[in-house]
Order: sequence, then structure tokens, then C-alpha cells
Amino acid sequence: MSFSVDAYLRSVAERAEGWLEALLAERARLGPPELWAAIRYAVLGGGKRLRPALVLASTEAHGGDTSDGSLSTRFAVALELVHAYSLVHDDLPCMDDDDLRRGRPTVHRSYGEATAILVGDGLQSLALAHLLASGDPRAPALAQMLADDALRMVLGQARDLAGEHARLDEPAVMELMRNKTGALVAAAVGGGALCAGADPVPAHALGQTLGLAFQIADDLLDLTADTAALGKRAGKDAAAGKSTLPAVLGEKEARRRAEALLSQALSGLEPLGPRAQALRGLARFVLSRGK
Amino acid sequence: MSFSVDAYLRSVAERAEGWLEALLAERARLGPPELWAAIRYAVLGGGKRLRPALVLASTEAHGGDTSDGSLSTRFAVALELVHAYSLVHDDLPCMDDDDLRRGRPTVHRSYGEATAILVGDGLQSLALAHLLASGDPRAPALAQMLADDALRMVLGQARDLAGEHARLDEPAVMELMRNKTGALVAAAVGGGALCAGADPVPAHALGQTLGLAFQIADDLLDLTADTAALGKRAGKDAAAGKSTLPAVLGEKEARRRAEALLSQALSGLEPLGPRAQALRGLARFVLSRGK
Repeated sequence: MSFSVDAYLRSVAERAEGWLEALLAERARLGPPELWAAIRYAVLGGGKRLRPALVLASTEAHGGDTSDGSLSTRFAVALELVHAYSLVHDDLPCMDDDDLRRGRPTVHRSYGEATAILVGDGLQSLALAHLLASGDPRAPALAQMLADDALRMVLGQARDLAGEHARLDEPAVMELMRNKTGALVAAAVGGGALCAGADPVPAHALGQTLGLAFQIADDLLDLTADTAALGKRAGKDAAAGKSTLPAVLGEKEARRRAEALLSQALSGLEPLGPRAQALRGLARFVLSRGK
Repeated sequence: MSFSVDAYLRSVAERAEGWLEALLAERARLGPPELWAAIRYAVLGGGKRLRPALVLASTEAHGGDTSDGSLSTRFAVALELVHAYSLVHDDLPCMDDDDLRRGRPTVHRSYGEATAILVGDGLQSLALAHLLASGDPRAPALAQMLADDALRMVLGQARDLAGEHARLDEPAVMELMRNKTGALVAAAVGGGALCAGADPVPAHALGQTLGLAFQIADDLLDLTADTAALGKRAGKDAAAGKSTLPAVLGEKEARRRAEALLSQALSGLEPLGPRAQALRGLARFVLSRGK
């Protein structure tokens, strides 16, 4: 029986929508309705849910439980909320100034800047609060990993800002990517292992490698795709003079690096055997996006 | 021997500066230096450190340890970081649009808006990461309380935004204050009790009451003090048409309510006896600010 990464992603996306919907409906009782409407808009109805898929696939790869209500699904929700918060703040006028996200107006275009800031702030708190409410003895270690990696993501974004003013060299761009995108992908794969009771350290490092490949693929996509296909503005990195690996090394060498990182990640998955089928499929999918 | 609330606050402020300084110096090694300079600017060199003082005083009131390196001091640091993040985001142009904080230019005036957003986002992650890194078995419950109350703070801020467009009635203003300011004061007093191994529920409720009195006192101060004395722009609530309790009930009735809340909080402290001396002093201090 062959494995379909598309079917896996669709299945996780549908399940994740349900988990997120249930959580937001429960917490929205705290009010005020205006903010919760904006939070729902930011979180629901779109996105590939790649990070939740990586969490579940990593938990499966390490022999853990990914049924509804498991710690793995709770961590997947928390991680997706952190990702959603980062997108809302990234899109703000003083940051990337984007009008479009997932083919719809961005949160600040629909609800105003002040609400967009509060949506992001609230989503970060909610992510940690939801994870820590699990009562599972592994939740605190997961929450610590998530908070540490969320901080690293911000450090990467700050380096990205600095990179708009001065062209970064290759090591600086690699460090930027390791933090900006790599941090949450590392948390997804590392956290998935922790949910299964496995050692999170090698899984976290593997996620870090995968996150780098993902960011390079994303940067290549920004060079070649058009706005309609992306659901967000294309070509904006070059326009903003951002320091990306394709910009620093050229498109061909950047693609070669991404493929080398994927090979490295796949070798790391070999010892996990057939249980790592979905994680292997997602790793390949991550890179194919850039083609 | 008489108790001096001023001396207590000075002592906590000096100790808190040291804890914060040490934490930021350690984490700044992660880079980038531009962001950490802005984080240091946001966190160090100012502020009454009222919330750390309330944490320590509540831990003492419940018979716990507040020596350097104790869980109580770690929680005080985490809570102050959440408070600092909220101030940085509150001051942004699309929020309160303030140029001055603690007598100095606000973070976005000194470092730009994009950096100010990242400073706030990073401080929230750092707060939780630092608390969860303690390894103390009570840290997860403290982190959950902090994340829940940080979310409530944002809900209160969102209600505050809505209140700029339509004048709120008394119950809505009370709910706004309970969340916006009350949440972190409740976390301070409730968390302080948890650090001592005591039941956090009554202490959290007592902090909630105190937080309400604090916000009313702050609103009264905004009506009467001048900018030099406040270290931030005075009279801005009235100028923004914000819904405050003095605006809804009048100055005299608002002051009466604040005093009633203080009496209620002091009655709640009676069973704790002489150990609650500092917490009693801080409760009275909180109200006297509005006079």
C-alpha cells in the first residue's frame, strides 16, 4: 500500500480544524466577542497545517499515540497557535506589510492594527495555557521546548530585520533561517518525539535540519511562483532586499543545499523504520514545494 | 519595629534589577545584539517593580522562601517580563501611541516599531521559558496560571479598545479592569501563595480585588497628576475618551469603591497574621497612589 502525503496532510488539516475550533469556542466564552472573532479569523479556515502534521508524524515515528485527545494532538494545536500568532504579527504594516494571507485579507486589514497585535499576543498565551492545562506529566517539558523555540523564532525575525539594512553573509543567513523557520519545525519534530516518550534531542536536531530545507524551499518558491498560486504576495523578499540563501548563493546552489539537507534528514529517519513513513513523506513534500 | 513599604519596595526593586540583569545577560548570548539592546532598554532601569514585590510579599505571607534563587524570585522575574512586554505593546502608535514611559522615550520611539513588536513577543516567550526552566515541581502550575492570566490581560485590553468606540457601562468597566490590570496582580498574589505551597485560589481572588483597587487608583491619578510626576503622559484617558470608573461613576464614588476594595482585601489578609505585614503595606500603598 503506497503512502500519500497529500491524503495525510488533508486528514491532519481536517482534524486540526476541529481541535482548534473546539478550543476557540470554549475560550471565547471569556469575551470580548470582537477579539475572538479576529482570533477565529486568524486561526481557522486555511493553512496546510504542516506543523501539526509534523508533530503527529513524529509521534507516530517514535511509536506514540496520536488519537484525538492525546498529548500529541494537544501539542500540535499549541504549536499551530504559536505559528498563527507569528503570521499575524509578521504581516503588520511595520513588519512585512502584507495585505494578503492564505488568499484572504490579513488580520490587520480586516480588524485593524491594534486588534492584530492583541490577537498575536493572546494566541501566544493561549498556546502555552492550553498545553499546560493538559495535566500530562510530559506537558511541562513540551511547554518549555515550545517557549524556548518561540523565543528563538523571534530572535531569527530580529536578525531578518537587521538583514534588510545590511546584506548578510552565508553563515548569518543560515543562523537566521535556523531560528526564524527552523525553531518551530524543530519543536514540531522534537515535541512529537517527547509525546511518544522518546528522547527529544535527536528528533529536535532532525527537525532543525528539515526546517532549514523548508526555508530554502520557501525562498526559492518566492522567486518563481506568482501571487495567485502562493495566496500571498510573491517576489516580496527580493523587493525588500531581504537576505535569503538564494540571494546569497544563487538559485542553483541554494537548491543543492536544500537537497543535501533533505538527504541528511532522511538518513536520520532510517533507524526509525516503517513507522517513520509519514515523517519521510512530509520531509520530501517540504522540499518539493520549492520546485 | 515599624514596617516601611518604601524600604520594602526599594529593596525588591534593587534585587529584581539584579535577577533581570543576570537573566538577560545569559540569554543575550543567543543574539542578535540589536534585539537584546532593545529588550534590556524595555526591562531594566526603572519601574517600581510592584508586581515582583507583591509576589515576594505573598510568598512571605504564606510562609514560603523568598531568598535569591527561590521559586518565588523566579516567578517574580517571569511576571515582570510579562508586564514589561504588555507595556511595550501598549505604547505602540496603533495602541496608546505613547512617546514616554518611566520618563524615557518608549521602546518604539528609541528602536522602531518592528523591533518593539519583536521585543514584546520575545519577552512573553522568555517569561514562560525562564519559569519552566526552574525544574521545581510547582513551576508548571505557576506557568499555567501566568499564561491564563496573561491571556486575560489581553482580553481586558481588547475590551478597552472596544470601549474607545462606545462608552461602557459600570459592569463592563469592572470586567475590563478585572482582566486588564487585575489579571497580573491576581497572578502575583496567587502565584506567591503557590510558591509557598499554599492554596492559590483565595490568594488569587484577593489579588484580583487588589488589582481592581489599583486600576481605579491609577485612573484617579491620571485625572489629577501631571506628566512630570507620572513619567508618562497624563490626562490621556480622558483625551482618548476611555471608559474608566471615575469617568462612569465620578471621582468621589470611584474613590469610595477603591477604598471598599482595599478594606475587603485587608480583611482577607487578617487570617495570615503578622507574616502578611508586607502584603498589607503594599495593599495600602497601591491605593494611596491615587490620592
